[in-house]
Amino acid sequence: MTSESTYPRDELLVARAYLSAVAEPPAPALAGFIAEQGVLGAAQLVREGAIPESVADEVDARRTTASGHSVLAAADAVGARLISPEHPEWPWESFREFVDGRTVGMVGMAEPVALWVRGGARLSEAFAASVAIVGARAASGYGEHLAAEFGHGVASAGVTVVSGAAYGIDGAAHRGALAGGGTTVAFLACGVDMDYPAGHGRLLRAIATQGAVVSEYPPGTVPRKHRFLVRNRLIAAAGQGTVVVEAGLRSGAANTANSSEALGRPLMAVPGPVSSATSVGCHEMVRAGKAVLVTATDEILEVISPLGTNPQVERESPTRPMDAMDPSARILYDVLAELGDAGADRIAQDSGLALRKVRALLPTLEMAGFVVRTEYGWSRS
Amino acid sequence: MTSESTYPRDELLVARAYLSAVAEPPAPALAGFIAEQGVLGAAQLVREGAIPESVADEVDARRTTASGHSVLAAADAVGARLISPEHPEWPWESFREFVDGRTVGMVGMAEPVALWVRGGARLSEAFAASVAIVGARAASGYGEHLAAEFGHGVASAGVTVVSGAAYGIDGAAHRGALAGGGTTVAFLACGVDMDYPAGHGRLLRAIATQGAVVSEYPPGTVPRKHRFLVRNRLIAAAGQGTVVVEAGLRSGAANTANSSEALGRPLMAVPGPVSSATSVGCHEMVRAGKAVLVTATDEILEVISPLGTNPQVERESPTRPMDAMDPSARILYDVLAELGDAGADRIAQDSGLALRKVRALLPTLEMAGFVVRTEYGWSRS
Repeated sequence: MTSESTYPRDELLVARAYLSAVAEPPAPALAGFIAEQGVLGAAQLVREGAIPESVADEVDARRTTASGHSVLAAADAVGARLISPEHPEWPWESFREFVDGRTVGMVGMAEPVALWVRGGARLSEAFAASVAIVGARAASGYGEHLAAEFGHGVASAGVTVVSGAAYGIDGAAHRGALAGGGTTVAFLACGVDMDYPAGHGRLLRAIATQGAVVSEYPPGTVPRKHRFLVRNRLIAAAGQGTVVVEAGLRSGAANTANSSEALGRPLMAVPGPVSSATSVGCHEMVRAGKAVLVTATDEILEVISPLGTNPQVERESPTRPMDAMDPSARILYDVLAELGDAGADRIAQDSGLALRKVRALLPTLEMAGFVVRTEYGWSRS
Repeated sequence: MTSESTYPRDELLVARAYLSAVAEPPAPALAGFIAEQGVLGAAQLVREGAIPESVADEVDARRTTASGHSVLAAADAVGARLISPEHPEWPWESFREFVDGRTVGMVGMAEPVALWVRGGARLSEAFAASVAIVGARAASGYGEHLAAEFGHGVASAGVTVVSGAAYGIDGAAHRGALAGGGTTVAFLACGVDMDYPAGHGRLLRAIATQGAVVSEYPPGTVPRKHRFLVRNRLIAAAGQGTVVVEAGLRSGAANTANSSEALGRPLMAVPGPVSSATSVGCHEMVRAGKAVLVTATDEILEVISPLGTNPQVERESPTRPMDAMDPSARILYDVLAELGDAGADRIAQDSGLALRKVRALLPTLEMAGFVVRTEYGWSRS
């Protein structure tokens, strides 16, 4: 093969590229087989067909046609690289639930065999502080505005924005993060050499420049409907939490939300008008107790980095001076607003407060600067 | 006093009226004193000043000036009646938390000494299936639309809509309930003889016709800021649950929500655009875990009457508007079908209803949209 001579490859890398190309993700049996046999051993056994039935089910269709060299060459053509568990930037922390067995047996929730990365961001670092922001493709202007605002706010705080590069919410979240000068990572349901969706070519290049475009599908893989659902688990895993900005009841975003839940990560949902079909999924997640309702960047940051760990998160709860006062004092103060200028007797009569209480309160309020003595009695200051 | 001779009064009623007028609500010490001494005994001791200091604090300002006869006469003038724990329609069930001591010591959470009622609804029955729908005065069009929709939906299901007759959400909820042909009850922060807010005079009359306008303040009491907060606990108590449609962070609706929480009743909040200042309070209640998020009438009904527990909640067969009306109004409406277009005299003649009753009913029916004024008198709309 030409590419083999042009770009001499590390044997391990070629084996990983082959294993990435040989099975349609998710491939839990293949992942287990690699862990058992090592990368080189697994690649050789798969190529020879000397494999257990469960692995055969995943690789038989492509084991004789897949080529590690050719997918690596295709990656080179777009400046993409292959990373895998052997690589120092592999995001172990993000994939911990896949590895520690929490998701074993859950359909589609296996760890990826490898990742193809276009862009300079090192994934393990990028995902150390990260949030997934996802939602409907057919989003409303309201939803896109919020996704951009949250993307911007989160990225400005140094937190990576993870999403799926789709039209609507995803794109707006990425754009917000780019505008915020932060890191953003897009997970694709096709090869990183493809511009998908077609209208997001420029956006994908911008993401690769300021973060990374990532896929577990080798270059050349075309998007298919089921691949979006499979891809969604990686978005959920890469975020320390997931924010659903807008979602219909049965949507891709709801699917990502389910993955987030399966991983035990915090799920957040943004409310909207109850008349909006794109907010129905969000409201339902909150009603079902699956998602926390969030309305602002600060609230999102607080969920992914609990109090104390993020000094930027500071919610203020204003108190007004009168709030601290005795309820009777507030009544007296209200009544004085109506009466204008009145003696203690009249204030007592009108407020129903005992005269001695009124007489006791007035000097206190005077000292606090709320009322003043007048020619006829008292008035508000 | 003229009123005394004109309307001879039951001694108990006059004593209750006096006790209602003598203290500014809430008056927990007075309520306890009445429970201890009985109504007649308590009234006499208060009048004489032979009372403990805690009671004196509540009644001293007005105990020599308050008059049961005059507030009863003022009530008569607007067709209002006084009800109290002695009366069979007293809503014991709604006030159970005040009485069983759960709210003892909570500022402002005492049971009312008496209630002034304008309108035909019997409170104990009206509140057997009920929901409070409250929210911002400066509501958005979105909020008012939803309040009306929920008011209509809830009332159509035979559930009484309780609110505070304010501009904005309250008014929309009442109007929705009226249009839904259901029962609706307004709690005022002033006497039931006052039209407050001024622009809601017609609405208050319609509420009195199809439900009741209620206050613990005797006729003649003007609205004051603190009275709205005190009044709010009764709205929360009268509803089996409270729905906050729109609310700012520090608002009357948030205050009603707190009362609902203090009473241990379910609190519901409606989401809205996060950019809307009037939804901030609702979102905060959900975020704090105080309120359940609700987006539709069915969700509200399910909270206040979990499936199967409330046979009155019958979603499939809403009552027809006229079913909820005064029997005389139905007679009048039937007669008008026969007569086509007729003056009040002719209607009285034909229906056998007193002329003054016909004259009183016609404008109410007009407001509810059943009849219209014509060149010769009245006809069905």
